[in-house]
Amino acid sequence: MEAPGFRFYPTEEELISFYLQQKLQGRATQDIDGVIPVVYIYDYNPWDLPQLSGERCRNDPQLQEWFFFIPKQEREANGGRPNRLTTLGYWKATGSPSYVYSSNKIIGIKRTMVFYRGRARSRSGSKTDWKMNEYIAIDDQSSSSTNPVPS
Amino acid sequence: MEAPGFRFYPTEEELISFYLQQKLQGRATQDIDGVIPVVYIYDYNPWDLPQLSGERCRNDPQLQEWFFFIPKQEREANGGRPNRLTTLGYWKATGSPSYVYSSNKIIGIKRTMVFYRGRARSRSGSKTDWKMNEYIAIDDQSSSSTNPVPS
Repeated sequence: MEAPGFRFYPTEEELISFYLQQKLQGRATQDIDGVIPVVYIYDYNPWDLPQLSGERCRNDPQLQEWFFFIPKQEREANGGRPNRLTTLGYWKATGSPSYVYSSNKIIGIKRTMVFYRGRARSRSGSKTDWKMNEYIAIDDQSSSSTNPVPS
Repeated sequence: MEAPGFRFYPTEEELISFYLQQKLQGRATQDIDGVIPVVYIYDYNPWDLPQLSGERCRNDPQLQEWFFFIPKQEREANGGRPNRLTTLGYWKATGSPSYVYSSNKIIGIKRTMVFYRGRARSRSGSKTDWKMNEYIAIDDQSSSSTNPVPS
């Protein structure tokens, strides 16, 4: 139990440099899982996700953001586009991807998505208020090479 | 040290029902002082206050709010208006006071103030971006009486 008033309001740098890096390096502890659990989020519709959030973040009506580690889909790992369908709709990217920096170094890519109810293929979905930011870590080696960042 | 990303973002209800009530009842612990210390804030100008904040909140560039317990001035305790002058300016109320509720019960009064550089008496101060919310607890007894709230 946190002291009253203490809540998980991470910066993007903390999310990537600490939580995501710890997880990628297999150094995730129970503490980290209690804040950001692994969830196959596309198995759920967005309104079902808050109750799956970390136990240190759950059931706080004040928090309106929830955090998950999402395993890479096989098709994405093979270079394809990830499948972002759920049973009742789909997540669709909005705007352009942007970079996340730490001390002027690029540490990640951020994509913002919006959830639409309906079928992706028919392009007839209706936009909802559910939003998701996806962060992908860029590791030290690639960002210090001469051709650092996937375009 | 908090886990990365955990910060003090209290609700007004938590500030009054937990922190202020604990303090008023003399039940303040080291933990509470580490979050909200007692500071005679009018001895300082606003830009000097962040470094006096609780050790669990200090030195976090992400936090842009700081919390203090302010002992009641003698003139205020005697029914007068508190003196809100600092060496370089003064705090001036803006808008109307409002109530803070918990489960439909009034638990406090909130006043918002803005800091002006200059002398209060000459009414020639220049408004700054520094803002302060002042919370005063209303105890159970008065809020359950027939004439609950000071007007």
